Amino acid sequence: MLIVMDRSATGQDVERVVAAAERLGLKAHPIPGAQRTAIGLTGNKGTIGPAAFENLPGVFEVIRVSHPYKLVSREFHPEDTIVSIGGVPIGGTALAVMAGPCAVESRDQMLAVAREVQRLGARLLRGGAFKPRTSPYSFQGLGEEGLKLLAEARDATGLPVVTEVLDTENVDLVAAWADGLQIGARNMQNFELLKKAGRTGKPILLRRGMSATLEEFLLAAEYVMAEGNPNVILCERGVRTFSDFTRNTLDLAIVPAVERLSHLPILVDPSHGTGRRHKVVPMSRAAIAAGADGVAVEVHHRPEEALSDGPQALRPGRFAQMMADLQKVAEAVGRTL
Amino acid sequence: MLIVMDRSATGQDVERVVAAAERLGLKAHPIPGAQRTAIGLTGNKGTIGPAAFENLPGVFEVIRVSHPYKLVSREFHPEDTIVSIGGVPIGGTALAVMAGPCAVESRDQMLAVAREVQRLGARLLRGGAFKPRTSPYSFQGLGEEGLKLLAEARDATGLPVVTEVLDTENVDLVAAWADGLQIGARNMQNFELLKKAGRTGKPILLRRGMSATLEEFLLAAEYVMAEGNPNVILCERGVRTFSDFTRNTLDLAIVPAVERLSHLPILVDPSHGTGRRHKVVPMSRAAIAAGADGVAVEVHHRPEEALSDGPQALRPGRFAQMMADLQKVAEAVGRTL
Amino acid sequence: MLIVMDRSATGQDVERVVAAAERLGLKAHPIPGAQRTAIGLTGNKGTIGPAAFENLPGVFEVIRVSHPYKLVSREFHPEDTIVSIGGVPIGGTALAVMAGPCAVESRDQMLAVAREVQRLGARLLRGGAFKPRTSPYSFQGLGEEGLKLLAEARDATGLPVVTEVLDTENVDLVAAWADGLQIGARNMQNFELLKKAGRTGKPILLRRGMSATLEEFLLAAEYVMAEGNPNVILCERGVRTFSDFTRNTLDLAIVPAVERLSHLPILVDPSHGTGRRHKVVPMSRAAIAAGADGVAVEVHHRPEEALSDGPQALRPGRFAQMMADLQKVAEAVGRTL
Amino acid sequence: MLIVMDRSATGQDVERVVAAAERLGLKAHPIPGAQRTAIGLTGNKGTIGPAAFENLPGVFEVIRVSHPYKLVSREFHPEDTIVSIGGVPIGGTALAVMAGPCAVESRDQMLAVAREVQRLGARLLRGGAFKPRTSPYSFQGLGEEGLKLLAEARDATGLPVVTEVLDTENVDLVAAWADGLQIGARNMQNFELLKKAGRTGKPILLRRGMSATLEEFLLAAEYVMAEGNPNVILCERGVRTFSDFTRNTLDLAIVPAVERLSHLPILVDPSHGTGRRHKVVPMSRAAIAAGADGVAVEVHHRPEEALSDGPQALRPGRFAQMMADLQKVAEAVGRTL
Repeated sequence: MLIVMDRSATGQDVERVVAAAERLGLKAHPIPGAQRTAIGLTGNKGTIGPAAFENLPGVFEVIRVSHPYKLVSREFHPEDTIVSIGGVPIGGTALAVMAGPCAVESRDQMLAVAREVQRLGARLLRGGAFKPRTSPYSFQGLGEEGLKLLAEARDATGLPVVTEVLDTENVDLVAAWADGLQIGARNMQNFELLKKAGRTGKPILLRRGMSATLEEFLLAAEYVMAEGNPNVILCERGVRTFSDFTRNTLDLAIVPAVERLSHLPILVDPSHGTGRRHKVVPMSRAAIAAGADGVAVEVHHRPEEALSDGPQALRPGRFAQMMADLQKVAEAVGRTL
Repeated sequence: MLIVMDRSATGQDVERVVAAAERLGLKAHPIPGAQRTAIGLTGNKGTIGPAAFENLPGVFEVIRVSHPYKLVSREFHPEDTIVSIGGVPIGGTALAVMAGPCAVESRDQMLAVAREVQRLGARLLRGGAFKPRTSPYSFQGLGEEGLKLLAEARDATGLPVVTEVLDTENVDLVAAWADGLQIGARNMQNFELLKKAGRTGKPILLRRGMSATLEEFLLAAEYVMAEGNPNVILCERGVRTFSDFTRNTLDLAIVPAVERLSHLPILVDPSHGTGRRHKVVPMSRAAIAAGADGVAVEVHHRPEEALSDGPQALRPGRFAQMMADLQKVAEAVGRTL
Repeated sequence: MLIVMDRSATGQDVERVVAAAERLGLKAHPIPGAQRTAIGLTGNKGTIGPAAFENLPGVFEVIRVSHPYKLVSREFHPEDTIVSIGGVPIGGTALAVMAGPCAVESRDQMLAVAREVQRLGARLLRGGAFKPRTSPYSFQGLGEEGLKLLAEARDATGLPVVTEVLDTENVDLVAAWADGLQIGARNMQNFELLKKAGRTGKPILLRRGMSATLEEFLLAAEYVMAEGNPNVILCERGVRTFSDFTRNTLDLAIVPAVERLSHLPILVDPSHGTGRRHKVVPMSRAAIAAGADGVAVEVHHRPEEALSDGPQALRPGRFAQMMADLQKVAEAVGRTL
Repeated sequence: MLIVMDRSATGQDVERVVAAAERLGLKAHPIPGAQRTAIGLTGNKGTIGPAAFENLPGVFEVIRVSHPYKLVSREFHPEDTIVSIGGVPIGGTALAVMAGPCAVESRDQMLAVAREVQRLGARLLRGGAFKPRTSPYSFQGLGEEGLKLLAEARDATGLPVVTEVLDTENVDLVAAWADGLQIGARNMQNFELLKKAGRTGKPILLRRGMSATLEEFLLAAEYVMAEGNPNVILCERGVRTFSDFTRNTLDLAIVPAVERLSHLPILVDPSHGTGRRHKVVPMSRAAIAAGADGVAVEVHHRPEEALSDGPQALRPGRFAQMMADLQKVAEAVGRTL
């Protein structure tokens, strides 16, 4: 931490800060400048926050210098982590394409979509059995029945299944049926859910909150890892900004940012990230070009009848085009599909 | 809903939309313009969304016209709702001041702060026993022990107690001890929690999510009311924007906006809303002047030792000044403190 | 400045940074920590930026500590500045209410509105002769003819006139007719305009840009003051965020923030800040309660016929109600109207 | 336009709206629903805004249906526009790479950088002679001397030159030396500058404002085109959001969005769009993969000595790597470099 003193701070004020730091076991390094004094603090194990100093007389500002996350950090784990979901690796040279409907709606729908995406090259199956919906009057998902249909689709196609868990009470149920658990954007800071999902040991697909900073995102992953679960996959799905021509603003620069700070793999979801079907394919290409480890996209064989998020789902034909496009971009960046 | 057709849409395209609407039980009203046709749809009970039409050929845009919430809406319930928390009314002429520490830290701390705020005129006590913390390494609250200390502070002061519930698994526990349940910003769209908290019948203090639109906020309240619980109090606590001189941006215009659209009472939290102690008092005055039904503020007798959010907590002396200020502003706007 | 080194930085890397700092005339203070070294730099007159260090090997981050503005800073000028516009003081105990139509539309309109607002207690007259409009096909203002009508309204009412200047080429023309020059939000970083307007010596009403940070806002004021013109009045008019129930998000916490950092007076414009007539009065009360030095509001005697921004203009009846409300709030905060 | 009436609106209210519409030359189509009436309006040439109706009794909301821009719209001009800057086409199959220093600093620097980027495959040269700087104490550019150095660099390399014009007073001067005029983000809504720059007939590189919506961006281009100048190139350079790990948030989805709505070409600037050197190359790849017509990047042979924006400038070595990467991505998306 760095403590910046007021211009009008007295020598006594500086001494008081130094004493407070020493009481907390830190070492204080005053740096007298022409106009004001700054005080560098070292020896902090990350448990002492700015609050311990911000209220002392003469303190103008307290600036935190080091990052509060550890397990997710590349500084502590320089090599890339590869997470396996049901045998499919995420994070290495091969890109992962996860595809499926927004919501599991019926046996016919789920099997039809699963077979299409498998045939067209997807490596993982997605689909929501428990759906977080803005309105209480919208379709809330099939629940356990949906989990069974996902498992049936896995059996039919061989594709491992990732599905969202909404609540601590259902963690065990979802973990019993799925190969990977998704924590949705609205739950990125549902810390009890992060802990309980982490304790299952299952791979966790952690989606960025709509207004999460990178640090908050990495700290949410840290919650999972602190439970002893190293299998975390990050997923950018767009953030909320003033920009109104897409449903969310896909913040693709997080891909190289995560690569620099963390060893965890990162996917991009251009379906939620744009909310518009005709932007999904170009933004999936952009994600791979930026260095993402794969994409998660919504596919529906009859999107006009989808019970949830129809406008952003790809039909199989356009999904096939996306796969062909990604094939070429993958080669351009030295990856394989 | 209004469906705007492409300039190049054909008569057949228009007929296809009309047919689709009629299949769904809606009535379609085509409006041919000089450059394009629009189609008004009536008869929607709120269950049919834009997705049903956005994928049809020739459709340029689908615009939703009516709001998806009902129980929270002033159109359905013109009179102001007054919610009682442990006998203290929120929403009438009298303003509600809720005060207490961010986190319950110890018996001494909780009782000291509770007695101070009671003495200085607070009507409700707040304090976190379960704390949602960005980092897994930060103090996470005393849990059940904290709930007991809150109850002891209620007994000592007569102030009803509001505290946060983080998780469905703890809803019954928290409801057993507290007079009102707080749903925090990070959980505003934790729909399972909204439902379960709603079913307790306890007053629910629902805090706005960091990036929640007004409609999402009201729909979260609708989740609670749809469980048969009319006792919802809204709370603005700042949203996340680029503006960096406060921790969050306090969006005070939501006060008259809520007043216009909903019958529910609304409080403002200038502590989280600014994150800086010296801005709490002016923004609490502004909240009341804007028409809020009260404020929720953090008070700590020794903020420099607080385990959570020390920089935004008021000392008792400044809290006393706030109460004196609010007294005058309340009179200016025809309210009482 | 504080330079944070990588964990893996070598002693040589640290020496290289120290040498670079000394070449620039700075003094470097290395602070070796358990995990990494930080280097405090002192002696910076504000002209050396982070770029000089960010590219050196082993540098992880460069943190700027001091603020780059001087003339606007309260640290350099502790007393509040009171700016006079045509004899009306802005910034002292008395609040300033500036009112008038968004755009000057005709002689009849301008005189009618001016007489109404003067009768109801406004102290300053506003109205746009040159209008910045998002669309080239919208009404662009009456230009010089509008300036003459403003001057005529001033003669008829005795109210000093503030009007916007859009362009360096018109600075002298506008300065010849108006008592105060407004720099609009879209031009807050039109630095040539700031300089030229500053050189007129006229009072400058500087409106915050839609996405301006507080530091950028104060630096824009610094541009004016650096031309030798101390007569700057700041004006908060809402910023652009995701929040969509108002046209802009009125960021009222900037009022106490400016009061802390700068000696300049600040007004609030609740008309643009909300864009909705029914929110103007409550937010004008909130502005005064937060400590603003006055408000700037749009008034139109027939808003349904306004050529610009009709939905946010108050009719005279509601303006009268606002003045009555502000009278009471002013007293509550120890000001006069 | 669509006018949504209150649930409580009377038949008389509806008639009043219909009459108002007809007085304005529009045709009104009432759509009575179960709960409220909506009124579609047709025949609007784009000059009548919502204000004409929002104040009428019984009106709940006025929704604009059609877009206010015309000349920039793909609906009016279905084919892609290709703009030539000094003979280099922007918008066809061949991608345009524009490179150079943020600011022209000296003859040696300008020639050195120009020769490097030309050698490595750039097609256009950029560099600022007039610099918009947040602080009045920062380097403001060499002015006319900088323009001459740019021209000298063009003569030495054959690369056409694009440089920013800050002010109406300098439009003719800049147009005399440069092949293309850049309008910067801070001036995107400096409408007088747009008009005057438009009247030169020179190609205009229009950069998106930091908080500009897509509609505002296109309307700014409409200002230029309305002066009879069809040579507009759009440029995404990042917008301002809460997301703090980059200087701005690069909103790449605007590339397919523009492609859908407008015939104008669009470039992406990953240097300003991220503000961090190590993110420039991945985001340049992403831009091309998303469909952009080229990139504009900052290159400096000694970025640690740059007078402006050093941390985001590429060294020639990394620029060479970027060109190699873009070569491959271009092929992957069917373009050439």
